[in-house]
Amino acid sequence: MSDIREQSLKKPIAVSEYLFRRLHEIGIRSVHGLPGDFNLVALDYIPKCGLKWVGSVNELNAAYAADGYARTKGISAIVTTFGVGELSAINGIAGAFSEHVPVVHIVGCPSTISQRNGMLLHHTLGNGDFNVFANMSSQISCDMARLNKPEEIAGQIDHALRECWIRSRPVYIMLPTDMAEKNIEGARLDTPIDLTEPKNDPDREDYVVDVVLKYLHAAKSPVILVDACAIRHRVLKEVHDLLEKTKLPVFVTPMGKGAINEDHENYGGVYAGTGSQAAVAERVESADLVLSIGSLKSDFNTAGFSYRTSQLKTIDFHSTHCTVRYSEYPGVVMRGVLRKLVERVDVSKLSVPPSPKVTNEVAKNRDSSQTITQAFFWPRVGEYLKKNDIVVTETGTSNFGIWETRFPAGVTGVTQILWGSIGWSVGAAQGAALGAKDAGTDRRTVLFVGDGSFQLTAQEITTMIRHKLRVTIFLIYNDGFTIERFIHGMEAEYNDITRWKYTELPGVIGGSDETVRKFIVKTKDELEKLLTDKEFNDAPGLQFVELWMPREDAPRALKITAEIAAKNNAKMTDE
Amino acid sequence: MSDIREQSLKKPIAVSEYLFRRLHEIGIRSVHGLPGDFNLVALDYIPKCGLKWVGSVNELNAAYAADGYARTKGISAIVTTFGVGELSAINGIAGAFSEHVPVVHIVGCPSTISQRNGMLLHHTLGNGDFNVFANMSSQISCDMARLNKPEEIAGQIDHALRECWIRSRPVYIMLPTDMAEKNIEGARLDTPIDLTEPKNDPDREDYVVDVVLKYLHAAKSPVILVDACAIRHRVLKEVHDLLEKTKLPVFVTPMGKGAINEDHENYGGVYAGTGSQAAVAERVESADLVLSIGSLKSDFNTAGFSYRTSQLKTIDFHSTHCTVRYSEYPGVVMRGVLRKLVERVDVSKLSVPPSPKVTNEVAKNRDSSQTITQAFFWPRVGEYLKKNDIVVTETGTSNFGIWETRFPAGVTGVTQILWGSIGWSVGAAQGAALGAKDAGTDRRTVLFVGDGSFQLTAQEITTMIRHKLRVTIFLIYNDGFTIERFIHGMEAEYNDITRWKYTELPGVIGGSDETVRKFIVKTKDELEKLLTDKEFNDAPGLQFVELWMPREDAPRALKITAEIAAKNNAKMTDE
Repeated sequence: MSDIREQSLKKPIAVSEYLFRRLHEIGIRSVHGLPGDFNLVALDYIPKCGLKWVGSVNELNAAYAADGYARTKGISAIVTTFGVGELSAINGIAGAFSEHVPVVHIVGCPSTISQRNGMLLHHTLGNGDFNVFANMSSQISCDMARLNKPEEIAGQIDHALRECWIRSRPVYIMLPTDMAEKNIEGARLDTPIDLTEPKNDPDREDYVVDVVLKYLHAAKSPVILVDACAIRHRVLKEVHDLLEKTKLPVFVTPMGKGAINEDHENYGGVYAGTGSQAAVAERVESADLVLSIGSLKSDFNTAGFSYRTSQLKTIDFHSTHCTVRYSEYPGVVMRGVLRKLVERVDVSKLSVPPSPKVTNEVAKNRDSSQTITQAFFWPRVGEYLKKNDIVVTETGTSNFGIWETRFPAGVTGVTQILWGSIGWSVGAAQGAALGAKDAGTDRRTVLFVGDGSFQLTAQEITTMIRHKLRVTIFLIYNDGFTIERFIHGMEAEYNDITRWKYTELPGVIGGSDETVRKFIVKTKDELEKLLTDKEFNDAPGLQFVELWMPREDAPRALKITAEIAAKNNAKMTDE
Repeated sequence: MSDIREQSLKKPIAVSEYLFRRLHEIGIRSVHGLPGDFNLVALDYIPKCGLKWVGSVNELNAAYAADGYARTKGISAIVTTFGVGELSAINGIAGAFSEHVPVVHIVGCPSTISQRNGMLLHHTLGNGDFNVFANMSSQISCDMARLNKPEEIAGQIDHALRECWIRSRPVYIMLPTDMAEKNIEGARLDTPIDLTEPKNDPDREDYVVDVVLKYLHAAKSPVILVDACAIRHRVLKEVHDLLEKTKLPVFVTPMGKGAINEDHENYGGVYAGTGSQAAVAERVESADLVLSIGSLKSDFNTAGFSYRTSQLKTIDFHSTHCTVRYSEYPGVVMRGVLRKLVERVDVSKLSVPPSPKVTNEVAKNRDSSQTITQAFFWPRVGEYLKKNDIVVTETGTSNFGIWETRFPAGVTGVTQILWGSIGWSVGAAQGAALGAKDAGTDRRTVLFVGDGSFQLTAQEITTMIRHKLRVTIFLIYNDGFTIERFIHGMEAEYNDITRWKYTELPGVIGGSDETVRKFIVKTKDELEKLLTDKEFNDAPGLQFVELWMPREDAPRALKITAEIAAKNNAKMTDE
C-alpha cells in the first residue's frame, strides 16, 4: 500500500524499524516485554535493528527488568500490548518515574481505524474508549507519543526519546497496528537525536557559582552529600572531579550508595539521619556547610525524615534548579554549576577536616553463635564483594542492611528505596545483569532478596537462565514479610508466607545442575566457606543461595525506620 | 483518642470493623490481597469480622483471584497498599470492570495528615500528589470512596458497596492509616445495605413488554441468545423461568457459556457467527426473532464480528436499557421486563421449532493417532465434566476450545474473553474454587491453561495449596503462545517460552506428594485412562496434569478468530 506521501520519501523506512533503530542509537541493545497481538508485527523488526528480544515471564517483571537495565546500561525499552499488557507493567513504570529511571514504554495498540470506529475489541473496557490506558500512563510518563499520523511519527519518536534521556523518566509510545509498517522518512536517521542537555544561562550560572564558592571558601567543616538524583541525572563525573580536586569529606544517602568510590580516602559513609552510624551522623550534622547533590529526601532514604541538618547550612544541587540556603535558582541545573565549581574552586581556601573511617565491621558484629544475624551478615558481604560488582537489594531487610556494607570501588548499587515495590529486585537484577552484559562487561550481579518479596516475581529466574546471565542470588530465608512485621503485626498471619523449596525452583523453571549452582547456608561457618570459595566467587552463570536468617531479626536501620513509619501511620494530629 | 463527635456515638465501631462487617453482610467470606505498611492495621480486623485473609503471592494474582471469587460467590474484596500494591493489581481490576465483575478494591493509604502535608513518603511518585493512583483507578471503578472524614465514612462505604453490587463492577475504597481505627457510628449496621435494584417505571416497562410480546407471538422461528451480562447482572433466574415456560430454543455466546443448563432439551449450542458449528449458525441466523439477553458483542465473543443476524430481527435486553429492533428504551432494565414476559407470554401463540442437538463429538473427532489434538480433546472434556463443576478457561486455545464442550447441568463457566489478560485463569481458578468452598459446596474447579499463559502467574498454585482448594489443573503443554502464533509469527522467537518441568512446580512451592497429585499425559490412551480413573475424578484436593498437545494445533474457532484479528490489525483503510 502506497500513497503520494510515501512516494515522496527519500529513504522509506517502516515506523517500527525507525523506532528500533533509534533505540539502538541511544544505547539500547535488548528490548524487554511480552508478545501480544497488537505488537506482534512490530516485534518482527527487533532483530533487524540489532536488538535482542528478552521476553520476560510477565509484564510486571519485564518492567522491573527494564528499570534494572536502565540503571546499568543508561536507558531501556519495554514493549507491551494494549490494556492488559501495559497495565500489568504500570507499577514497574511508575517506579521508574518515581525513581528517575529512563524507560521507553512502547505499547502496541489497536489500529487507528479500530480506534476511530470505537470497535468493541478484546483488551478494551468495552466502552470504545481507546485513550483510557494512555491517560493513566500520562501520570507516570514525562512524554506521551501517540503515533497516529505518519507525517508526525518520526518527530514524535525523536522527541520522546530525547525527553526520556534528558529528564531521566519514562516515556509512553503508543504504536497502532496499522502504523507499525507504514513507511516514513528514513533520511532523518542520518542525523542522531540530540541528547545534549540545555545549557544554563551563563550569567545566572556564574552568579550561582560565585555564591556557592563564597560559602564553600568560608566554610570550616564542609561536606559533600551525594543522593539518588546525582546518579540518575548523570553528574557523577562532575561529582568525582569535584571530589578529586577538593578532597572534601563525602557521604552518600541510602539511595546514593554506589555513587562514590567507597575506597576513596575521603569517603565517610552512609548518612540517613538517626539511621546513620554515630560517627557519620556526628560529622555530617556538625558540618557548617553541606553540598547536597541530587537529594531525594524520602522517608526511607532519611530514616523517617530524621536529618538533623539545617537548610541554612545547605546548598542543594538539582537537575532542575539549585538552592543556596533559602535562595532558589530555578532553571539553573546542577551539571553546569558543578563543572564551573570544579574549575573555579580555590583549594588553598578550603578547610578539609577528615572523614570518619568506613570499614566492614565484621569482627565487631560477630557473636559466638552460628546464627547468621543481620548485624553480622551485611559487613561480611562487604568483604565478599568485588570491584565493579552490581549489587541489587530489595525493599526489606536487604536495602536497609546494605547500609552497613562498604562497597569496593566501581560497585553499582541498585535499589528502589522511594518506590519500594516488593518483588522488584528479582526483575531488576535480570535487567541489570543483562545491561552489564550488553555493555560488554562480565560484571557480577549480586541480588539480596527476602523470601516474602521473592515469591512475587520468582519466575523471572527463568529469563536469567535463558539469557545465561551472571547473577548470584542470596535468598534471605526468614519466613515472611520481616519489614512489615517490624512496622506492624510481628506475629500476624498476614505477614506469613508459604515455605518453598527455594533452591529447587531454578531447576524446575528452566535450569539444570549445569546451568544453576545452588546452596543452602544455615551457619556462619557454612557462609564463610561459601564466600571464600573460589569457584563460587568466579562463577560465570547463575547461583542460588538460600540463606537462613532469624525471622524476627532486622538491620538496625530498618528497626529505626519501621518504628517511625508506624508512628507516622498512626498519628492522629499534626504535631 | 476521642473527640466530641466520638462521644456522641451510640455504638462506636472502628472504620475497619465497619467496612469488614459490611463485606461479610453482602456475602464475602474471604478477602484477597497482600500486606503493606499502609494497610496492616486494617488487616487486624479481618478475622474479628468472620472473614478469612487469603494472602496471594502478588497483587495481580490477588486481583485475578478476587475476580474469580466474585464469579462463584457473587462479590469479592481485595486489599492492597498504596501505589505499588494497587498498581500491581490494576490490570486485574480493569478486567473486572471490563467484564462486569463486582470487586471491592480497598487500598490502604497514607494518613490524611501525611497527605495534607504532601510528605515525601515511600510508595509515592515523590511529588506530593496522593490522588494520582486513585485518579487512574477512577477509570475502571464505578464508585470511588476516599474515606477522609469520619462523619461521612459509613455513608461512603454503604454507597460504594451498593454500587458495586447493583452495577456489577469494581469500586475503589481508599482507607488512610489514621482512619483505620477511628470510631464511627456502628448502629447503622443494624440496617442492612439496600442492594435492591431500582425498579423500572411501570408504564414504560409495560409498554416494552407489550412490544416484545407482539413480536414474540408473531414470530415463526424465535430463539433466545444468552450472553455475558445475563450472568453478570444476575438475571439467570428470569431467563430460566422464561425458558421453562416458553420452551424456546436457546443458545449461548462464548461469554454466556454456563448460563444455560446444557442438558436442557431446548439448548442448541454456542453461537458466535462464523465460529459456530454449522447447524447452530443456520438455526440462529435463520431465526425471524432473536431475544438477545445481556449481549456483549466483542470481537472474540463473536468470532471477529461475524454475526449474520439482523437488528431488525433482534430484541436486546440489557442491564441499563432495552432495544427492540431500532427502538431504544433507556432506563428500562431487563430484569423487570423479563419477569413480566414470563408472566404474560401466551405459550399457545408461540412457535417453537426444534434446536440443533448438542453432543460431545468425541468419536467424530478421534483420529487413529495417539496425538491429543485440540479437536479431539474438548469434546472429550465434555464427557469428563460432572454436574456443578466450575470450568475455568484461559485466553488462548482453551477459551476457544471449550466452545466444543457440552457442559453437564449446573456447570459454571469462568472465562475472560473480552479483557483477555493472559495468566488470569490461574488466579481466577484460585478465587473461583475458594468462592465455591466459602459457599459451603465441594464443587470441583477444573482449570485449562496453556503453558505460555501459565508462566505469568504460576506461583498462585501456592495459595491453592495453602487453602486446600479442590482444583484440577490441565496444563496444555504446547510450547509457547499458540494464540499469538495463529495471529502472527508462527515460528517467531517472541512466541517461544522456556520449557519448565511443570509437574514439579507444585511440590517446590508448598505442595507435597500428599497434597498435590501430578500426571503427565502424552497420548489419547493415557488421557482416557486418567479421565476415567475414579480417584482422579473424586480427588478432593489439587491435581496437576501436564497435557501434551501439538505446538501448531488450535481449536477451529481460534483459527477463524485469529485470522480475522490479524486482518483487522493490518487493515489500512475503512472498508
